[in-house]
Amino acid sequence: MKFHLVTLFEEACDAYLSASIVGRARKEKKISVKYQNPRDYVENKWGKVDERPYGGGPGMVMSALPIIKAVAKAIKTHVGRTTSHMNKSVIIWFSPSGKQFTNKDADALTKYTDVVLVCGRYEGIDERAKKILKTLATVKEFAVGEAVYTGGEVPALAIVDAVTRRLPNVLGKDASVEERRIASSAVYTRPETILYKKKKYKVPTVLKTGHHSNIDNWRKMS
Amino acid sequence: MKFHLVTLFEEACDAYLSASIVGRARKEKKISVKYQNPRDYVENKWGKVDERPYGGGPGMVMSALPIIKAVAKAIKTHVGRTTSHMNKSVIIWFSPSGKQFTNKDADALTKYTDVVLVCGRYEGIDERAKKILKTLATVKEFAVGEAVYTGGEVPALAIVDAVTRRLPNVLGKDASVEERRIASSAVYTRPETILYKKKKYKVPTVLKTGHHSNIDNWRKMS
Repeated sequence: MKFHLVTLFEEACDAYLSASIVGRARKEKKISVKYQNPRDYVENKWGKVDERPYGGGPGMVMSALPIIKAVAKAIKTHVGRTTSHMNKSVIIWFSPSGKQFTNKDADALTKYTDVVLVCGRYEGIDERAKKILKTLATVKEFAVGEAVYTGGEVPALAIVDAVTRRLPNVLGKDASVEERRIASSAVYTRPETILYKKKKYKVPTVLKTGHHSNIDNWRKMS
Repeated sequence: MKFHLVTLFEEACDAYLSASIVGRARKEKKISVKYQNPRDYVENKWGKVDERPYGGGPGMVMSALPIIKAVAKAIKTHVGRTTSHMNKSVIIWFSPSGKQFTNKDADALTKYTDVVLVCGRYEGIDERAKKILKTLATVKEFAVGEAVYTGGEVPALAIVDAVTRRLPNVLGKDASVEERRIASSAVYTRPETILYKKKKYKVPTVLKTGHHSNIDNWRKMS
């Protein structure tokens, strides 16, 4: 499974995607992460990726063509060969009004070989980019959380992370089943008693009984 | 305004927080970002920050005390001097069942001088950490998006980003007003006509008229 980040900020993303579970999955070739910089596809000599919006308004808008070319490169789509890639590649477009990305969406993404995450900056990307990208592959619009961020990089990291940990063999057998985790968010580990500022904090007694059905009940209630 | 990330993965976070608008805000001393590594507060000689959960279950749980000590260091709270920091520091605890973090929450955080973001890994953090942290400062529980991530780092980056861009003078006068952006997510910039695979894609005519009320109406509808 390949993730392609279309971003002006490769370094900012790659440090996160080199650490911990995602980093290990990359080293073990369970996933790969590639980058495409829209600036490499700009045709003006200043490397300018943004312009003022038509119709006025604040800020700058990213131009469509450098984004489109970066995505096309990522999915190696050439004129006339589009359809053969249609079912394997998916393009993720971020929008505050997009669908909230869930674990179920993460599972659905595992069916693709190439996931291209388009990280806009500034006031957004020229809307025609989305329209044209739909001619190249399936485009899914997502939001990650409800606040507005500087760009699509944080949502992209969130998606790569959430998808990777759900791939077979990425987490150990013994590891997290997150649905279970949500059902019982309160977890406890050693030591049995914590002494902090002269006060004692103890592990709930039931967890030490070894009585599985009582423990399951307690977890459902807590 | 100081952000403190309590994390095992400083490098993974710092690359993101050194780039773009957040990076510039740090350079211009509008915000600062500090790190505390729970591993520095571990008392066993192996530097082990996690243990198996009480009551059984998958994965590992982060121990409470190294987290608490890291947070206490971040807000420089000492025994008996807690109250003086109560109103200035806020501790962010991540939980899939927490409140979804919004722009409004971002604005509320700008009222604190110190925002401590506790990034758990593995199956979560010993629940007693949260209980004890509440004796040190206000604790707010948030979720960023609806999927499950490997740790609290991505949500923490999301919050630092969302809060920073809302601070006075971080975005230029001319820059993004995100409520407006949400109202009209479709933006367009040069060139007026994009030619892609022999097809023309044009900017909506109304945006070129300079007729502000028509443009506003179009933006509300689109």
